[in-house]
Amino acid sequence: MNKIELQKQYDEYKALGLKLDMSRGKPAPEQVATVERILTAITKNEDCFSETGGDCRNYGGLDGINEMKRLLGEMLGVTSDYIIVGGNSSLNLMYDTVARSMLHPVEDGCKPWSKYEQISFLCPVPGYDRHFAICEFFGINMINIPLNDDGPDMDMIESLVASDETIKGMWCVPKYANPWGCTYSAETVRRIASLKPAAKDFRIFWDNAYVLHDLTDTPDELPEIFAEAAKYGNEDMFFEFASTSKITYPGAGISCIASSPRNIKRILDALKIQTIGHDKLNQLRHARVFKCYDDIVEQMKVHMNIIRPKFEIIYRAFEKGFAGVDGVTWTTPNGGYFFTLCLPEGTAKRTVELCKEAGLVITPAGAMFPYGKDPKDSQLRIAPSFPSQEELAKAADLLTVCARLAILEKAE
Amino acid sequence: MNKIELQKQYDEYKALGLKLDMSRGKPAPEQVATVERILTAITKNEDCFSETGGDCRNYGGLDGINEMKRLLGEMLGVTSDYIIVGGNSSLNLMYDTVARSMLHPVEDGCKPWSKYEQISFLCPVPGYDRHFAICEFFGINMINIPLNDDGPDMDMIESLVASDETIKGMWCVPKYANPWGCTYSAETVRRIASLKPAAKDFRIFWDNAYVLHDLTDTPDELPEIFAEAAKYGNEDMFFEFASTSKITYPGAGISCIASSPRNIKRILDALKIQTIGHDKLNQLRHARVFKCYDDIVEQMKVHMNIIRPKFEIIYRAFEKGFAGVDGVTWTTPNGGYFFTLCLPEGTAKRTVELCKEAGLVITPAGAMFPYGKDPKDSQLRIAPSFPSQEELAKAADLLTVCARLAILEKAE
Repeated sequence: MNKIELQKQYDEYKALGLKLDMSRGKPAPEQVATVERILTAITKNEDCFSETGGDCRNYGGLDGINEMKRLLGEMLGVTSDYIIVGGNSSLNLMYDTVARSMLHPVEDGCKPWSKYEQISFLCPVPGYDRHFAICEFFGINMINIPLNDDGPDMDMIESLVASDETIKGMWCVPKYANPWGCTYSAETVRRIASLKPAAKDFRIFWDNAYVLHDLTDTPDELPEIFAEAAKYGNEDMFFEFASTSKITYPGAGISCIASSPRNIKRILDALKIQTIGHDKLNQLRHARVFKCYDDIVEQMKVHMNIIRPKFEIIYRAFEKGFAGVDGVTWTTPNGGYFFTLCLPEGTAKRTVELCKEAGLVITPAGAMFPYGKDPKDSQLRIAPSFPSQEELAKAADLLTVCARLAILEKAE
Repeated sequence: MNKIELQKQYDEYKALGLKLDMSRGKPAPEQVATVERILTAITKNEDCFSETGGDCRNYGGLDGINEMKRLLGEMLGVTSDYIIVGGNSSLNLMYDTVARSMLHPVEDGCKPWSKYEQISFLCPVPGYDRHFAICEFFGINMINIPLNDDGPDMDMIESLVASDETIKGMWCVPKYANPWGCTYSAETVRRIASLKPAAKDFRIFWDNAYVLHDLTDTPDELPEIFAEAAKYGNEDMFFEFASTSKITYPGAGISCIASSPRNIKRILDALKIQTIGHDKLNQLRHARVFKCYDDIVEQMKVHMNIIRPKFEIIYRAFEKGFAGVDGVTWTTPNGGYFFTLCLPEGTAKRTVELCKEAGLVITPAGAMFPYGKDPKDSQLRIAPSFPSQEELAKAADLLTVCARLAILEKAE
């Protein structure tokens, strides 16, 4: 198709006055409607007691109720003593963990991170914009690490952490990585678990956001990180995060941090200063509806059946729209909420711009990179979950038109 | 009564093997049972939408839903643009506010508090142990300010903040101050509102924990702080905190921070990095049950009728037990969760020790002072809310025995 024909297609889309939003990994209305039973899990005063008899309406219970610690532990493959139950936001737990580390030593004999002239985090890219925003907020320097289909570039990581004492952290989304969609291989996990960092207070933020969020019947498998780390005496090196945001309610779910019992104790010592404890009544609602791991697995199939067709609609539109277009590829993950569209260098920003002018909002180009800078300006994050199937078909088609137009413009 | 008789009474108590706890300002089981209707406020998917149509189950809405902002605003006497709705813990909002100020400037042109060699907070004493714990955790020096029946010593405060640029904050519980029980007078509030601190980033943490928590039909009145502050161009100097912890559920209520719209904007800029937003579904539950200010006032009468008799039981026991004992007084506040028992110098710690040995836990002596040090070792915080009336009668009687024994020991 030549540029005149393409421009005509684009103008036709523009004339429709569309208002489409494919920018965030937000569960769809039909997904949040699948757990209505949470709303009626506790309706009477006598229902408000945890299995140990604690009154979930009142104060107490800094680390969460037993049944929720157990359930979250089963989700992550660890025992309850590795778990602190949080509020409705695992992002908040990650932010708090970084904030705490800035002002209080992460490890005996170390100084708070804010006492350094400059510290750095390793950031596999493309990655999650909110991780990078936390680093930027605290003035933490970010170092790009290329992400491959089996995980981040381990040669680079091993060499950097071994030589630089000011590298204090690394962000990882080890399963269905946002937005690439890959899962770290067993070998990658082993190499991460056995890292020998120069900094005693080097910590890996293991954001297991999509631990059970499969999209196919042949899901990826990720080794449990604390079992791996224990083999190398590295259990204290990991803070793992997860939540039910994309299992139950994005805005009213339950989050957790998992770490070695030694780290858990250290976190609780700070947490008792910070809060009276998180909402145990909502923990109890969740624990009453999801009594065991299998109950959650069942629920994840319900989500899969809603989300998978949405990914497939976009794949089909891309296959058709990008047929015969050189230099365009995309990932097709087995789970998670995103995949990545790779365009020829220097065309991603212009594509987003064209989309916006025609009424389609997608994640800004560059958002998946530290400081918002995609060095090649070539990647786009695709988030199929929220719009309806009809909207997605239109959005995906319009996106291909915009990308092809941007590619032709660039070639001129 | 001589010491032998008193010792006999004490030993008889000890023999009973009591297990009484009067240590915390925790609402009683019969109080948390009074809002069962919150549990059924939302039971269906179609109930989950705020008045603007927002889906409270999903992401979005960093500052809270409109109806909850309005309600909390009415509680505090400010408009919604002064409010950010928090999670279940106002303590967490206070901690976060201090933590944020340590690493990010509170005011344009200022540096973060952690960049100073040392900063200080003014602490009216006796005060709230958890406020002091936050300061201690962040290494903030605490300066004791005597608290009188009309509020803290304003001459001292005015002089200190005017001359010392490293004084960055002050804790206030302006109504029914924990644990003294007094309410700041209109003149005290005016003088606080018109302070002229040397530090541009001096901030007052106005913890209005007991804003509607009256215990009598002639409650204290506290001027609304932002209206007062506006008269002196000092609106940005205040962070106000409140919650429904002692209106609905201590562990599953709704908190808020109130501040000038300028400060609110600054806080939201940080909050969007920190969290996806607080639990809106629980906000909606609260807003459905409490549709307006009057609904909350009604609920507070229910609490008053449960708590007031408990205070009175202890007053009666003290009047009887301390009759004819020199140097013993206690406050009798019109609201709140605490009052203070003042003993002769050097007897408070020993009283707590004797209580503990006989099975009664009360707040540790000194806990209401920075660094846990009551300079005169003479004050005890009395927290009547949680135990039953029967338990309280026993506890109060035992406490008088212990105190009188400690006084006699000291006199020997």
